[in-house]
Amino acid sequence: METGPLRVALCGTGRIGAVHFRNIIANPRLELAYIVDIEEKNATPFVAQAPGCKYLKSIEEALKDDKLKGVVICTPTAAHKDIIIKSIRAGRTVMCEKPISLKLEEIDECYAEAKKHNVPLFCAYQRRSDPSFFKVYESVRKGDIGKVQIVKTISRDNPVPTLAYLKISGGIFHDCGSHDIDLCRWITGEDPTEVYAAASTFREEIKSIDDYDTIMITLKFPSGAIGSIDLSRKAAYGYDQRLEVLGEKGMAQTQNRQPSSFVLSNESGVLGDPNMYSFPQRYLEAYAAEIDHFADLILRKCEPKLSHEDARKVSIIAEAAEASARKGERVFIKY
Amino acid sequence: METGPLRVALCGTGRIGAVHFRNIIANPRLELAYIVDIEEKNATPFVAQAPGCKYLKSIEEALKDDKLKGVVICTPTAAHKDIIIKSIRAGRTVMCEKPISLKLEEIDECYAEAKKHNVPLFCAYQRRSDPSFFKVYESVRKGDIGKVQIVKTISRDNPVPTLAYLKISGGIFHDCGSHDIDLCRWITGEDPTEVYAAASTFREEIKSIDDYDTIMITLKFPSGAIGSIDLSRKAAYGYDQRLEVLGEKGMAQTQNRQPSSFVLSNESGVLGDPNMYSFPQRYLEAYAAEIDHFADLILRKCEPKLSHEDARKVSIIAEAAEASARKGERVFIKY
Amino acid sequence: METGPLRVALCGTGRIGAVHFRNIIANPRLELAYIVDIEEKNATPFVAQAPGCKYLKSIEEALKDDKLKGVVICTPTAAHKDIIIKSIRAGRTVMCEKPISLKLEEIDECYAEAKKHNVPLFCAYQRRSDPSFFKVYESVRKGDIGKVQIVKTISRDNPVPTLAYLKISGGIFHDCGSHDIDLCRWITGEDPTEVYAAASTFREEIKSIDDYDTIMITLKFPSGAIGSIDLSRKAAYGYDQRLEVLGEKGMAQTQNRQPSSFVLSNESGVLGDPNMYSFPQRYLEAYAAEIDHFADLILRKCEPKLSHEDARKVSIIAEAAEASARKGERVFIKY
Amino acid sequence: METGPLRVALCGTGRIGAVHFRNIIANPRLELAYIVDIEEKNATPFVAQAPGCKYLKSIEEALKDDKLKGVVICTPTAAHKDIIIKSIRAGRTVMCEKPISLKLEEIDECYAEAKKHNVPLFCAYQRRSDPSFFKVYESVRKGDIGKVQIVKTISRDNPVPTLAYLKISGGIFHDCGSHDIDLCRWITGEDPTEVYAAASTFREEIKSIDDYDTIMITLKFPSGAIGSIDLSRKAAYGYDQRLEVLGEKGMAQTQNRQPSSFVLSNESGVLGDPNMYSFPQRYLEAYAAEIDHFADLILRKCEPKLSHEDARKVSIIAEAAEASARKGERVFIKY
Repeated sequence: METGPLRVALCGTGRIGAVHFRNIIANPRLELAYIVDIEEKNATPFVAQAPGCKYLKSIEEALKDDKLKGVVICTPTAAHKDIIIKSIRAGRTVMCEKPISLKLEEIDECYAEAKKHNVPLFCAYQRRSDPSFFKVYESVRKGDIGKVQIVKTISRDNPVPTLAYLKISGGIFHDCGSHDIDLCRWITGEDPTEVYAAASTFREEIKSIDDYDTIMITLKFPSGAIGSIDLSRKAAYGYDQRLEVLGEKGMAQTQNRQPSSFVLSNESGVLGDPNMYSFPQRYLEAYAAEIDHFADLILRKCEPKLSHEDARKVSIIAEAAEASARKGERVFIKY
Repeated sequence: METGPLRVALCGTGRIGAVHFRNIIANPRLELAYIVDIEEKNATPFVAQAPGCKYLKSIEEALKDDKLKGVVICTPTAAHKDIIIKSIRAGRTVMCEKPISLKLEEIDECYAEAKKHNVPLFCAYQRRSDPSFFKVYESVRKGDIGKVQIVKTISRDNPVPTLAYLKISGGIFHDCGSHDIDLCRWITGEDPTEVYAAASTFREEIKSIDDYDTIMITLKFPSGAIGSIDLSRKAAYGYDQRLEVLGEKGMAQTQNRQPSSFVLSNESGVLGDPNMYSFPQRYLEAYAAEIDHFADLILRKCEPKLSHEDARKVSIIAEAAEASARKGERVFIKY
Repeated sequence: METGPLRVALCGTGRIGAVHFRNIIANPRLELAYIVDIEEKNATPFVAQAPGCKYLKSIEEALKDDKLKGVVICTPTAAHKDIIIKSIRAGRTVMCEKPISLKLEEIDECYAEAKKHNVPLFCAYQRRSDPSFFKVYESVRKGDIGKVQIVKTISRDNPVPTLAYLKISGGIFHDCGSHDIDLCRWITGEDPTEVYAAASTFREEIKSIDDYDTIMITLKFPSGAIGSIDLSRKAAYGYDQRLEVLGEKGMAQTQNRQPSSFVLSNESGVLGDPNMYSFPQRYLEAYAAEIDHFADLILRKCEPKLSHEDARKVSIIAEAAEASARKGERVFIKY
Repeated sequence: METGPLRVALCGTGRIGAVHFRNIIANPRLELAYIVDIEEKNATPFVAQAPGCKYLKSIEEALKDDKLKGVVICTPTAAHKDIIIKSIRAGRTVMCEKPISLKLEEIDECYAEAKKHNVPLFCAYQRRSDPSFFKVYESVRKGDIGKVQIVKTISRDNPVPTLAYLKISGGIFHDCGSHDIDLCRWITGEDPTEVYAAASTFREEIKSIDDYDTIMITLKFPSGAIGSIDLSRKAAYGYDQRLEVLGEKGMAQTQNRQPSSFVLSNESGVLGDPNMYSFPQRYLEAYAAEIDHFADLILRKCEPKLSHEDARKVSIIAEAAEASARKGERVFIKY
């Protein structure tokens, strides 16, 4: 039986940090004990809204609290590893925004530490927690559509991230594509063996940092199933996130979601809302579910939704896809 | 400027009480100080989830707390008036689930007390806070559809409430129809002058308490606009809540909402999710917005969304509609 | 076995005449032998498009052709009876646009003549031949939704008919409402016993002829089922034709149809086509199916989709609905 | 001015021949004078339905009729060239089902003959005549979505064609993919320079003829736009035909179409019709529009919707796409 809310610390108060902050305080199973941020002024407005919550400059201070059960990490990617390792060594359950690291060896290192200390490490790819995507997963598993033949995802971002963010994002293949690569592996239950990626760049600022903004990735799976991933840094009509799976017996899909069900009909046509604005709106339920999953992990009620193998393979495939785009060749994937 | 969360008490922990509980703890502008319920065992699980929250047997005890700013009332309707009057006399801002009372004179009495003490009294008709319905309201106000000719609502409940609830519900006209009557007045900005209602009862248990389960109300407005309200105690396909307004230049509508955007296509057709299960799911955002509106009211940032006049006229129209159904005649409405 | 196309005559070349003309020439089971119209210049462009077709001034001339099998009547309503009676007496199968007549006794007279001469007389209410409405009918008959509790139709016209037409239309209750009344009887399989209608007029030219343009009819059926019919002379967003049936186990509906499936998504939202423009577009398949049904009737393969009883009861109910609107009272319907 | 229907001959009475037969007889601008088929028994049922139409064994006999204006060719592909050349030399306007030929040099030869004799030769790719796809084309041309970044098509067939047909189909890249390649060129107004195709085969009978049944083609255009074509020989949920174009300012799309707008809602969800069954249903309006375009071509009112250049480039790209799939390499396209 659960005995009162579980004390957790939140590291980082950027865009995604603000999302997790709201879900932690809204979840009656968790109590937000500390907000950790190298800049106190970033943390202040959040601390003010959470009765009983304190600001701390470093994770070390938080880990001194014996009642602290878990650590949620939303810092820039470069800072992940240090906080993960320290928290795990202190026996705390860790939830870390994706990716654990841009370097494969650091991913392995973190999970090795988690294994050694028998501590759950949860790398949060939010789409696995989205109710719509999960229904596609379930439907495929139940056999509703039979053998999978094609799996397609669309991830078109909105708004275009700032150049400051883009520079540290790891590039569109790792930053965006990794979500879709994870979805394709999760849905098919297979590891792709070949990848081809066509890439273009329409935005000058993205050209200036030698990244792409428009990508079409093709994956080939051992079963013959074909994957297609469509990425863009900008959907002018709002955040566009879709999944479609064709099987021999049918098709399972998700559609985009709108903030309301309002419809205006006039001589010009039938006009509905634009899509959800961006990720905090579109994945509202997913982020709340991740935080709840984190509570379950602290209580050791289940395994993390994403395993070490999942995290490392996603990284390997994203790397191979980017290599394909840069070389203009099909790439065979080695795990 | 706001200085820290506002302390509030929650009275009643039934279905709607549980909804408001979640929204109060999730809203960083509010702090849930007390849960008041005549049965401690009802309150216990909620108190356990809200750090710093205490159980109290009566509202009087809560009102002794000088820092308490507001009271949210979710008790059975019969208990509303007493808590409202006490809270208002103690200068606390009050949010009360609809209706204030089934008796028109008690509604007037509560609002008179609120006026006398200059305290906001917010009777919560959640549809005015729903983003989809609000967009219809805005669209009509902006003139998108020109002069209003027809306004239609559909409110088909799910699941059928318990007989225990139905007995104290005030009947389908007051319990369900009042929401739709409020919508029609809000959208048109007019008071209907005539009403006709056709009513049937298909369920034996509802016949046994001399209530109806299926209603079609027609309203006539001074401008010539016609209103139509479609009520049922049971939609087998999930909670059905729709609004449609026809004007000379177009139509503004809401559609039903589904829990996910999952779609399965096979030989049988294209199958999407059933509607949201019931009111807590369908009006999730509306309830959260009501609680946020309540924080605004405590801070005197705005007027209550529903006025005394709104509350009393809705009651008068529901009464007239029921009279029409019972007599089988058109009824002229006197305010 | 069918031996070559069946020769038919078309009387009248107005709006609906043009629709039936296209369907007759497109149907390989029929051969358009004659076009009858009191004005030759109206018929000329049609005759020119139909190889082998001749213009005739009167139906009598056409009936002299021994090989003529059927007569399709699309003249103004006032001319229906004369052509029906003559054609039936000459043993020809007759398809006549609704209504047979605005006078109940003339309807009875025509069907009596048809019975006497054992000739099929098909009064064409096109909605029974629409694939979407027919699926609702089938679904209700199969028991998909269980016992019917509510049946609703919406018929909002586009464009507003000319004043010349409106004057001879028989009024909105007979001209438009009769379709919806027929739908409600067809779906429920019951005759309503009570009717209440609220009516308004927003357009000056319609006021000038003492007709209405906006109607809400409520029907009560012996089973307790409630019907609601929503009529308007103008839907600014295109022809609006909907049917919805609520039963204890679910809901069967039709949605509006658009000319294409084009969708444009941008910052303003998701914009689809407006509805079909008007009846020839919306009921394209229905009109083609009616003409095919007419070929079946000539060959005595089936009974007319609409019986004498259907035609006369629709007329009686429309009359009662109009009486209710004019008196402001519920009216009991006598058949 | 047009003077009476234009006499045309129809060659071939297979699946697509039956479609064109219906549209020719339904179009008042055309008169079906002859049906040409090497097997008289195939033609007989059609001739019986078309008053004045005669069966002929060969096109030469039809071309003796001085009043014959045009020839519609629906024979197997291998027979196209002979009929085209003979008809063009006889000065008749020709409409030929795609492709003109599987051999590039034969395509060139036919168009050269048409040019020499100044006779319109219309190779019918029906999607350019589809109202939904045309609206996407128009929308892109009007600049609604700004610069094109991604163009995607989905063509999933239903039912699986017979093995007999598959053997003479030219393979999935030419038989199906050519439609989508044409769409991508038409929408972007560009010729792709690179192609990569991933291909799989799930059906044994298709493996047996060394063809594929599941394809994902990626195209790269000079502007940087990326194309993606998704092909399958079988959509279990009905014919699936979609087009989507992403631009910097928005997205233009088509959705699948259903035979009716019927919707059933119950505890299992909201169930609509499956997609249109196959091409004759889905492209009903497109085929009718093609036949009308053919009448315009006979009268020299416009140029063929598809030019010689269009026909040959589609063939070249389909060839390159198949080569990519077979080699597993990106292929640069030379025109």
